[in-house]
Amino acid sequence: MKIAVLPGDGIGPEIIREARKVLEVLQKEGLAITLEEAPLGGAAYDQYGSPYPEVTQKLAREADAVLLGAVGGPAYDNLDRPLRPERGLLAIRKDLSLFANLRPAILYPELANASTLKPEVVSGLDIMIVRELTGDIYFGQPRGIRINAAGEREGFNTMLYAESEVRRIAHVAFGIAMKRNKKLCSVDKANVLETTEFWKEIMIDVAKEYPEVTLSHMYVDNAAMQLVRNPKQFDVMVTGNIFGDILSDEASMLTGSIGMLPSASLDANNKGLYEPSHGSAPDIAGKNLANPLATILSVAMMMRYSFNLEAVAQRIESAVKKVLADGLRTADIFEEGTRKVSCSEMGDAVVAAL
Amino acid sequence: MKIAVLPGDGIGPEIIREARKVLEVLQKEGLAITLEEAPLGGAAYDQYGSPYPEVTQKLAREADAVLLGAVGGPAYDNLDRPLRPERGLLAIRKDLSLFANLRPAILYPELANASTLKPEVVSGLDIMIVRELTGDIYFGQPRGIRINAAGEREGFNTMLYAESEVRRIAHVAFGIAMKRNKKLCSVDKANVLETTEFWKEIMIDVAKEYPEVTLSHMYVDNAAMQLVRNPKQFDVMVTGNIFGDILSDEASMLTGSIGMLPSASLDANNKGLYEPSHGSAPDIAGKNLANPLATILSVAMMMRYSFNLEAVAQRIESAVKKVLADGLRTADIFEEGTRKVSCSEMGDAVVAAL
Ligand SMILES: CC(C)[C@H](C(=O)O)[C@@H](O)C(=O)O
Ligand SMILES: CC(C)[C@H](C(=O)O)[C@@H](O)C(=O)O
Repeated sequence: MKIAVLPGDGIGPEIIREARKVLEVLQKEGLAITLEEAPLGGAAYDQYGSPYPEVTQKLAREADAVLLGAVGGPAYDNLDRPLRPERGLLAIRKDLSLFANLRPAILYPELANASTLKPEVVSGLDIMIVRELTGDIYFGQPRGIRINAAGEREGFNTMLYAESEVRRIAHVAFGIAMKRNKKLCSVDKANVLETTEFWKEIMIDVAKEYPEVTLSHMYVDNAAMQLVRNPKQFDVMVTGNIFGDILSDEASMLTGSIGMLPSASLDANNKGLYEPSHGSAPDIAGKNLANPLATILSVAMMMRYSFNLEAVAQRIESAVKKVLADGLRTADIFEEGTRKVSCSEMGDAVVAAL
Repeated sequence: MKIAVLPGDGIGPEIIREARKVLEVLQKEGLAITLEEAPLGGAAYDQYGSPYPEVTQKLAREADAVLLGAVGGPAYDNLDRPLRPERGLLAIRKDLSLFANLRPAILYPELANASTLKPEVVSGLDIMIVRELTGDIYFGQPRGIRINAAGEREGFNTMLYAESEVRRIAHVAFGIAMKRNKKLCSVDKANVLETTEFWKEIMIDVAKEYPEVTLSHMYVDNAAMQLVRNPKQFDVMVTGNIFGDILSDEASMLTGSIGMLPSASLDANNKGLYEPSHGSAPDIAGKNLANPLATILSVAMMMRYSFNLEAVAQRIESAVKKVLADGLRTADIFEEGTRKVSCSEMGDAVVAAL
């Protein structure tokens, strides 16, 4: 099994280094994986003049799974925006057809204080958001800035979902609901937008193939409220690309510990790209301060979804829980009474706990 | 000054009855207002076969301000959806060109416990969200469900903003920022959507006319997170119709007391439609249990924005604060140690406190 490792920018290289330690343990134990690195984002732009250059494209296409650190940073914010997402992050998602983005929002009991929400509202929180990732207004044509019939400038974009796009994300979401608590909430704005009225109709149709799953529907504005009011009412949520972008970030912030949250982006054959939900944190880059746990938990998701190695996934997740229970914390999740450790110390501790 | 009163459905008539009491006090004191009622939503559908019939349209068009209760209810959910918003709520917004929706999210100190967020995170919260209300993907053409070139069905909508639409909402937002703390955050997804890249460009241009206001920009996904992480960083926020729909509901839920929050929707000449931010609550309709304070506070907004009577607005707001300080609570905001009152008792108490 071939894993493409793309450290990226900012804290990317340091958190990837710790995740590699976990992968290398598995490798030494006999798991048949190979690891090969290539640049992405700013690092790739510096070396090859493109955030997703051919060498990276080739590696990512040939791999069975991709492990990504993070991309972007202030050094790249100005040069005519060389890292515009459509050339980097959106390009790799589309290139690899990674249409199913899985974003868990889990509150670890040891980190309950980090949430801005009251303990009783979030204790035990465990939501899985399934976000469609290669369609919607992110990619819909036509789009741009033009002069309209009245001679005025206007900006425009197209929200768009074809039936097959909705069906395949529906199957992913129902499949995940089947493995969890058989409860799926589809989020739309069907009262206003035909695209999502169509989305809802197809969700209802696909539901017939999963009679054990209870499907509910919620408008996106209400979902944004309910996540604050009573997030534990949700188990699996499924929604389109733009609503999923907003709601998955809101949900992850409910835990207060975005440094803990992994993500997976899958294609139709379980090939996946795995990355932490947090960004490249340029302010702390290179200081050995970053939290590598979201990246390590992304490796667990890789084992689960791309390699179908549930036991290995759980072993990694248990090791992470153990270091938390042992009181180890990187700076972002530190609180009094716990032990502050560096990025590499945290990685070593997880390896020791494996 | 002519006020069109549209009680609507569910708890609409009861909360409007209490708000009318306040208006009638002002009237008796000599304020030159007239009040005339017409049906909207389900009530209008039952009587005239349309949720926004001609009689209501005529009254609303001729009025200087509109006071609305709430619309919708389960009785209307099925009949081929007679209350589809484009025939009711969206129709009246568009018909009256109410492009500027103002939605405060205020946490009253007496109701701090109602929030699901920790007290230190939300105490003193006072955000004003300015949402564009007559453009964006809500109204953009083309839209619908069609067969694409590959013979497959697809749903599609058009996000669209013309320069003049962005300019006028920018001026409203900067104007409000000038009257508050001179801080404005414009929310977009300029890294992906040309419509909002265009929006951002115009915000920056309009900012030149308001050199005292500090303008910042935030991506919508980050804004959804920051509202949970640290909502007090915001003062005035401005955004498009769909992002505003989501963020204003999220922000109002941070207070835990959506029964307290008014809203205003203004045209270019300060004509406005005023309504509570909450819905028609069919489950408690007719039971004299509803909270009339959001509707009464909507009357205060009417005095401020349509009639330029700041002192009257503040007098109403002070009366509301006084009844809260006196410990009076409707069921939705009741907690131990306070006195539970009915909808009409709450209205009477506000009148007494005026
Ligand atoms: C950087 C941006 C294009 C991206 C998105 O909107 O998809 C990010 O917010 C994410 O969620 O991965
Ligand atoms: C009912 C619906 C059309 C409406 C909207 O999306 O504008 C509502 O959510 C609101 O915010 O007033």
